[in-house]
Amino acid sequence: MPDFTDSLLPAEPSGASVLASERARSNLSIDELSTHLHSHDGFLALQDKVLPILQSEPLLNKSTQHNLSRPDRFKLALARAKLVRRLADKHGWTPAEHEMAEYLVDEVSPYMLHMGMFITTIQEQGSDEQRQEWLPKIEKWEIIGAYAQTELGHGSNVRGLETQARWDGTRKGFVLHSPTLTASKWWNGTLGRTANHAVVVAQLMLPDPVQTSEGDSGDQRGTKYISYGPHPFIVQVRDMKTHQPFEGIVIGDIGPKYGIRIPHSALLSRYCSVNPETGRYSKPSQPTLVYGTLTYMRSKIVQHARLVLARAVTVAVRYTAIRRQFKDRDDASKNSPELPVLDYPTVQIRILPLLATAFALHYTGLAMQNVYSRTRRQIESGDFSSLAYMHTDGIETCRRALGGHGYGGGSGLVQLNADYLSKVTVEGDNWMITQQTAAYLIKKMGSVVSASVAKVEKDEIDVQFTTYFPKIQGGETDRGDRQCDYDILRNDGDLVQAFQHRATALAYDVYRERVVRKRGWTSIMTQLHRLSKGTESLLVEQELTSSAQSQSILVTQFYNALSSDTELSAAVKDVLWDLYRLFSLSTLETEKYEFFSHNAASKHDLDAVLERINELTSRIRPHAVRLVDAWQIPDYLLDSALGRYDGRVYEDLFHRAHRVNPLNKTTVNPNYWEDEIVKNQGPGGEDMWSILAKL
Amino acid sequence: MPDFTDSLLPAEPSGASVLASERARSNLSIDELSTHLHSHDGFLALQDKVLPILQSEPLLNKSTQHNLSRPDRFKLALARAKLVRRLADKHGWTPAEHEMAEYLVDEVSPYMLHMGMFITTIQEQGSDEQRQEWLPKIEKWEIIGAYAQTELGHGSNVRGLETQARWDGTRKGFVLHSPTLTASKWWNGTLGRTANHAVVVAQLMLPDPVQTSEGDSGDQRGTKYISYGPHPFIVQVRDMKTHQPFEGIVIGDIGPKYGIRIPHSALLSRYCSVNPETGRYSKPSQPTLVYGTLTYMRSKIVQHARLVLARAVTVAVRYTAIRRQFKDRDDASKNSPELPVLDYPTVQIRILPLLATAFALHYTGLAMQNVYSRTRRQIESGDFSSLAYMHTDGIETCRRALGGHGYGGGSGLVQLNADYLSKVTVEGDNWMITQQTAAYLIKKMGSVVSASVAKVEKDEIDVQFTTYFPKIQGGETDRGDRQCDYDILRNDGDLVQAFQHRATALAYDVYRERVVRKRGWTSIMTQLHRLSKGTESLLVEQELTSSAQSQSILVTQFYNALSSDTELSAAVKDVLWDLYRLFSLSTLETEKYEFFSHNAASKHDLDAVLERINELTSRIRPHAVRLVDAWQIPDYLLDSALGRYDGRVYEDLFHRAHRVNPLNKTTVNPNYWEDEIVKNQGPGGEDMWSILAKL
Repeated sequence: MPDFTDSLLPAEPSGASVLASERARSNLSIDELSTHLHSHDGFLALQDKVLPILQSEPLLNKSTQHNLSRPDRFKLALARAKLVRRLADKHGWTPAEHEMAEYLVDEVSPYMLHMGMFITTIQEQGSDEQRQEWLPKIEKWEIIGAYAQTELGHGSNVRGLETQARWDGTRKGFVLHSPTLTASKWWNGTLGRTANHAVVVAQLMLPDPVQTSEGDSGDQRGTKYISYGPHPFIVQVRDMKTHQPFEGIVIGDIGPKYGIRIPHSALLSRYCSVNPETGRYSKPSQPTLVYGTLTYMRSKIVQHARLVLARAVTVAVRYTAIRRQFKDRDDASKNSPELPVLDYPTVQIRILPLLATAFALHYTGLAMQNVYSRTRRQIESGDFSSLAYMHTDGIETCRRALGGHGYGGGSGLVQLNADYLSKVTVEGDNWMITQQTAAYLIKKMGSVVSASVAKVEKDEIDVQFTTYFPKIQGGETDRGDRQCDYDILRNDGDLVQAFQHRATALAYDVYRERVVRKRGWTSIMTQLHRLSKGTESLLVEQELTSSAQSQSILVTQFYNALSSDTELSAAVKDVLWDLYRLFSLSTLETEKYEFFSHNAASKHDLDAVLERINELTSRIRPHAVRLVDAWQIPDYLLDSALGRYDGRVYEDLFHRAHRVNPLNKTTVNPNYWEDEIVKNQGPGGEDMWSILAKL
Repeated sequence: MPDFTDSLLPAEPSGASVLASERARSNLSIDELSTHLHSHDGFLALQDKVLPILQSEPLLNKSTQHNLSRPDRFKLALARAKLVRRLADKHGWTPAEHEMAEYLVDEVSPYMLHMGMFITTIQEQGSDEQRQEWLPKIEKWEIIGAYAQTELGHGSNVRGLETQARWDGTRKGFVLHSPTLTASKWWNGTLGRTANHAVVVAQLMLPDPVQTSEGDSGDQRGTKYISYGPHPFIVQVRDMKTHQPFEGIVIGDIGPKYGIRIPHSALLSRYCSVNPETGRYSKPSQPTLVYGTLTYMRSKIVQHARLVLARAVTVAVRYTAIRRQFKDRDDASKNSPELPVLDYPTVQIRILPLLATAFALHYTGLAMQNVYSRTRRQIESGDFSSLAYMHTDGIETCRRALGGHGYGGGSGLVQLNADYLSKVTVEGDNWMITQQTAAYLIKKMGSVVSASVAKVEKDEIDVQFTTYFPKIQGGETDRGDRQCDYDILRNDGDLVQAFQHRATALAYDVYRERVVRKRGWTSIMTQLHRLSKGTESLLVEQELTSSAQSQSILVTQFYNALSSDTELSAAVKDVLWDLYRLFSLSTLETEKYEFFSHNAASKHDLDAVLERINELTSRIRPHAVRLVDAWQIPDYLLDSALGRYDGRVYEDLFHRAHRVNPLNKTTVNPNYWEDEIVKNQGPGGEDMWSILAKL
């Protein structure tokens, strides 16, 4: 309905004119920087190809989706995922193009695990026969699979899973069984309503060859069983025609429970097998863990994390450039305008380091993709599970910097935050990596301390530990009025050294507590807690060394990437070096006392870090809008009134609230003494009736 | 539908038995502690009276409300708020009882602003005639009012509001006018759909008595207007019968716009008036700001914040006591159970300080309620807007400690976090307080530096500044190998001194930059940023002194409350002292470098803080469940499977997912080549049709 608001304009300067002058005041080439960020994997070409196809589909319009109920949202997501797959067939999309489409549509796809863990596990753990049988059906989506590992009572600790697959020698098959309520499979996306198959991870229970009394309490015939640990089984869980669960299986959103028989061939047997005649287990001939694949998967997580962070920062930079609040307190003139909040150093210091972090993640992700590079082992020593929190914290920081509008549907950050916080959890099975990482670093440190590093085996971690260990020992004996070697404020290479020094010192602390002082694993957790600042994962002790180590890797990779670059223009390179310094120093700033007490930086320099950060943020400030433009996040993906490219923030907010908001189609009855809720529907009107039916 | 899962039990030990033994291992009297926390305002008696009435109403059942869409949720909230008011009438509830009911129902009430800012503003700013006219109708809810101050383009800076109320001398009334899109009133809860009246804050525009060219561009007759600043007007915005907005007003969820005439009597005129004959303004005879009221309102925010935090901590403590993950790495026995995660020091160090914070907020809130106490001015020097973030950050920390289940609907923390983050924003108009606070502390410091503190006027801030200023000056000249006076690890009173010392030192830094070095307000923001660590409010520079000051007040009030108490048993008192130490030291730990560099603590002690915190958390650990029990947060309010009093966590999670979840009533069609979404509805089935209609 047209009304007088249609012709109203925002107060000057409008968002559009603000962003135009922001872009005019920087000489950075957005094209050059975009190419630098995105050319290595053809990302922009993919985006340019897929985006217009998606935008022309009404079903993929995002404008009011956040007003839907959860069940409706699920159905919509299913309809959208089907459509995207059909578009992929129609246009002959490559897997990368299909993936790009999912990324831009930005739904939690009901087929997510089918395309991810389900197919990956069968590829990696299935025998040749199993691959031949299953992979063609999976690729055609003739069957839809899920991955059922975590349970109601068990997440990270896979060894503790309760679901059992017990060998029945008479019938030559397994009995899949959930003995308790806590054994219910839980958090298994896709499985709840969509999948008809699943990879189920269960304890493989076989008859104990020696039949001691140590084993399981036995079956009716008194056979003792022992567990051979968690193994993956492929199981059909629903009827292909009715889509109802089989007898003996209860499945719902969230979680299935089992009490069914599955054939011998259900055990994925690339690396192990059960002899169908004897029920004997054959050990894996090689470790099931393929390091290259893991590193590759983790590099994808990092590469995705940087885009998510870039997205939040894009919204934050554009809107804080437009949003004005308060006049300069020292400006006596009555008519001067309020300042854009991005001009406040206190806002710069929160937003611009996150922008720098997106670049830091970028370079580390790139290095991780190159699994054959010399840096591979060094990167594997970092635990990047904490990065997931780094970027969700970043989203939240951006949101808070936006003021009230940051919490509205128009910010684009509300759903982003909710989605990624839960994704962090879904992807959270880092127990293996973190356990290995801590043990690995302690062992490495042991070799260095005992000077037993073999020359041929030397990797980056050996080099790092060997280089800094003598300095740490020196620092130990001299706790007095010492000077620090690293000029963190003026020398970019010294910054790398300070981080490597500190990471080594922390690894040495862990080593000393655990190996030299022989302290219990649990008792040293707190002693080590200070090392883990900034990480929030539940069992912090397993990643704390790697937390400092991760920071060190991010700084090192950022430095290496810029040092070795020969292509960038001076204008772009200068700003990237400033971003490197800002990332490193603002990371250091939050851990000041630790750098001080481990002599990785001098008190004199530490006292001046903030002033230096200030100088860097004010140098980066004029380029802020172009720096986020270069990430090329399309408005369709941002789905944000505050962050839109053209700066028409207030027009869009008003449009969304006034014209699009479904609540405004309802007139209510505010009189508390009357039962009627929606005007003219009468008491017990249809709207309320349907709501009450859902309660 | 009954199935085999009905008879399944969780793996032992069950949550119920865990909580029973947790409660058995502590000798704390829950009754004594509950009385200590809640007796001062009859809180528990109110809760006990109101809760059973609410729980017997089907409309107030919370079990599946989080599955509703936003428009449905709004209608439900309206129906509930009406019901609660009718219950208040029926049972003759006092305002405190009505408030308790709203707190327990825990909805964002569509009448929230009617009961809050609308009635308060008319009480405080209305003339006697205006009060007599409006208050009876407001109290009977015959009219429903909102408070319309913030605008699309303006939040905190009230002076920048664009909406105008221009005096029309001919018609003896005002013309209320939104000149631009950004002048749209925004974030005005209640107004969107519910209210028929509003207090509208607008620039009062009167004819310039001297008619200089400095004024506004003038009307048709060339009269110049000047603004007398923002003033509140009471305005009817909707027809009482049709509930449609008047001609010239566009209102929606979110925001109204105006182009209407309102009478002379619309200007709330307790402290100012416009002469209807001459259009001349009479200045307020006394300041409109009533300090006592403000402090009282802020004390209510703090008291509420502590309950919200206690709620999150209740969920976290109970569930982490039940949840088990990983065996002790040093436990070689094969059959030992996994450890409860609350036994991990790394979990304790995140959850127990928040428990201690709830107590710290409690004592400060109590002191604030006593506005006539000697501490009043000291408390007013603290800016408690940062507390709002303190407790939302606390909710998030708790949620993360819960693992995957923390992000599910069953945690009770998802909605809590969303609601309170947005409430922080809604209540965020602290610009006046923060500006005043910074200026106040700088001025106070000036008096101390120039030794001009009058003896009679001395308040707590004077005493604090006078006490610590000489020590700070001493520290300045001696930056070498100094010793610190405060024994923060062994002396409870010294902890208070360390915090007061640091707060004074920071105030002195601000004073020196601003007054002595005459640095620009904007340019010192970054220099001051380090003082504001932990706060996230947009314009941090205005609250940074007060941030350290707020921490100092919390520590001081906690200490004073325990020191002066004569009633508590030794058992309870011992644990409360440990909570005091834990709160103080864990606050200090996050700002270690600052305490070090301002000589408020010695390096020797700072290096040992973590070990001391560890000792405190392990002493508090056995009492954790009883300590949260004592807050007496009812299960109805917690609405959390993880936090329920009886510990039946997994049974409840399974029940919610398997039996209550509406999504599980839908069987979907997963074949991407078929349009059908809901099985047996066919392509374009009714469900999808209604979803698409909403897009």
